[in-house]
Amino acid sequence: METEGKVIKCKVAVAWEPGKPLSIEKVEVAPPKAHEVRIKIAASGVCHSDWAYLYDIAKMKPRPFPLVLGHEGAGVVESVGPGVTKVSIGDKVIPLFLPQCGQCERCQSPKTNLCTKNWEKTQQGVLADGTSRITCKNQQVHQFIGISTFSEYTVVPEDNVTKIHPDAPLDRVCLLGCGVSTGYGAAVNTGKVESGSTCAVFGLGAVGLAAVMGCKAAGASRIIAVDINSDKFEIGKTFGATEFVNHKDHSKSIQEVLRELTNGGVDYALECVGDVAVMRAAVEACSPAGGVCVIVGWIEVEELSLAPLDILLGRTLKGTYFGGWKSVEAVPRLVQDYISRKILLDEFVTHRLALDQINQAFDLIVSGKSIRTVIEM
Amino acid sequence: METEGKVIKCKVAVAWEPGKPLSIEKVEVAPPKAHEVRIKIAASGVCHSDWAYLYDIAKMKPRPFPLVLGHEGAGVVESVGPGVTKVSIGDKVIPLFLPQCGQCERCQSPKTNLCTKNWEKTQQGVLADGTSRITCKNQQVHQFIGISTFSEYTVVPEDNVTKIHPDAPLDRVCLLGCGVSTGYGAAVNTGKVESGSTCAVFGLGAVGLAAVMGCKAAGASRIIAVDINSDKFEIGKTFGATEFVNHKDHSKSIQEVLRELTNGGVDYALECVGDVAVMRAAVEACSPAGGVCVIVGWIEVEELSLAPLDILLGRTLKGTYFGGWKSVEAVPRLVQDYISRKILLDEFVTHRLALDQINQAFDLIVSGKSIRTVIEM
Repeated sequence: METEGKVIKCKVAVAWEPGKPLSIEKVEVAPPKAHEVRIKIAASGVCHSDWAYLYDIAKMKPRPFPLVLGHEGAGVVESVGPGVTKVSIGDKVIPLFLPQCGQCERCQSPKTNLCTKNWEKTQQGVLADGTSRITCKNQQVHQFIGISTFSEYTVVPEDNVTKIHPDAPLDRVCLLGCGVSTGYGAAVNTGKVESGSTCAVFGLGAVGLAAVMGCKAAGASRIIAVDINSDKFEIGKTFGATEFVNHKDHSKSIQEVLRELTNGGVDYALECVGDVAVMRAAVEACSPAGGVCVIVGWIEVEELSLAPLDILLGRTLKGTYFGGWKSVEAVPRLVQDYISRKILLDEFVTHRLALDQINQAFDLIVSGKSIRTVIEM
Repeated sequence: METEGKVIKCKVAVAWEPGKPLSIEKVEVAPPKAHEVRIKIAASGVCHSDWAYLYDIAKMKPRPFPLVLGHEGAGVVESVGPGVTKVSIGDKVIPLFLPQCGQCERCQSPKTNLCTKNWEKTQQGVLADGTSRITCKNQQVHQFIGISTFSEYTVVPEDNVTKIHPDAPLDRVCLLGCGVSTGYGAAVNTGKVESGSTCAVFGLGAVGLAAVMGCKAAGASRIIAVDINSDKFEIGKTFGATEFVNHKDHSKSIQEVLRELTNGGVDYALECVGDVAVMRAAVEACSPAGGVCVIVGWIEVEELSLAPLDILLGRTLKGTYFGGWKSVEAVPRLVQDYISRKILLDEFVTHRLALDQINQAFDLIVSGKSIRTVIEM
């Protein structure tokens, strides 16, 4: 492409400081260095985590600002740096905040998807060489978890991108970059939900609805959706929820309500909220006879308090990161599953906005009116 | 036997109130009612839990006093009540605080060993009809978790007893009534320790040493024994420990020490202390790449605090009760494993005392000088 090797001037949404709205800025995106890929982003979902790192910072570890948020995108490879072999110019791709280098000890292990490649660096908002590729007003702008998809162009390490089917609609499959893969995988990979089981899913955001979809795919007989916003129950049915509980409708604790509904507790509880009180409720809602609680909702600072007896008497507590998927190999398969209608994506998208309107997406998250807003570049 | 159908006058160790030494008393043990078995106890291990329910009551839920403690015994069936079909007079048996009725939903499930038969009652120190069979000075004396093995005779429900091999030496196999089965099963059943893995076992009491033995049986390559009493390291080797860490020897936290020793964390951590700070350390000592922490040490009141990120990034927390064994069917197999030298028992027994000397066994627990004291009736 004619831009290859050159700095690209384009628009991104910059978070200059915590607690302030994003600012649409003209920035410079440098060419990819060795083993890096520059992507023309087509669309990006707006995830609750993007909002949380900007506005709910008391619950998160501090990230360096200024920052370009966004980590649930899809696009087309504009150019590649020296040594890149895994993708080519023109490929449709999904950038991955969790890499899969294929070489490290963890990539070799079937027990984990937590590739360590560049982990420390990308958590600090920079690429392998310790710098970002985005510059605004002569200032380096950090790349959120190495990705930064609230942008017309971004640069990511080669191991943080995966090539997907050329027919994939980028404005839908972008959701596989985080939320849908995370929730769906929490059920099918981490929880290993079994056929005929009873599940409870806490929180009907995109991650929770994807968890519901995962429970359904795994053959669960009962999928009890739990939320404090009854407006979300209708869409829950679309994804497979069979029952709904709004804990505001009950004087008892939600764990008591669920235990009563299920003869002592659910087989699987999936916490998709990111709240320590809900995590505890999810543990306590599990059957002591082998119930498994998977925490999915992301939280970095607060502590989870549990009664040891609840664990000693037979519950298991697990967590999931990116749904347990080994990212590079799994995401293209999930794209195929969408194309072949094995999983839903369209139904998550309640709003579409232009990059200039991105702060409205955060308003929609706060008001609980959106499932997913997709930003179209 | 000539005592069949009659009240038996015999000696037991009565706990009249919390915090006070046990008192050897002449009591009356009533004949077994329907579906009950009266056992002439031959020997009983003294478990840390017996001590804790008497002296460390701030960490335990209150139990009704007066009480006959002891839950790790072995004996011979003296007589059976109406309807008993599973054992006969003269059988060598081990009484089981965890029953296996074979009928309830949990007994039918492969996922749990937590039979619910008479659970509420035995937790309250009485049998199925709401009363105890032990009377002292015209007062009902409660049976600790339905068992009460610090006694010459006791009565237990038919589902709370299992027949063992007639050659079994009762003064050793009694340890399979609690501690050894619990620790060993925590590794092989609950943790499902894998061949070639790296394990850490916290606490080298009988439960911890049995966990070490379980890790070895499962083929673990490294078994790191952790204790604050270096005197226990020598015996740890007997059971299979390959390395030892006394966290008093380090300025860093034990979890940091273990992570450094193991390239980021152990595959399996088994907490055999019953302390919430150690439980947290055990979780944090696990590899984020799929590490499994099994809590084994019993604690009822204090709360365990965790960083959700430690779970979200890939650790699993599980608990074990009686090592995950389905008691009636498993304990006779474990007895056979002892007879065929697949598991060790003799090496746990550091002290032998008469029932009259039972308070010395508690002194030995407090001083850390014993692994297991066996009381011989």
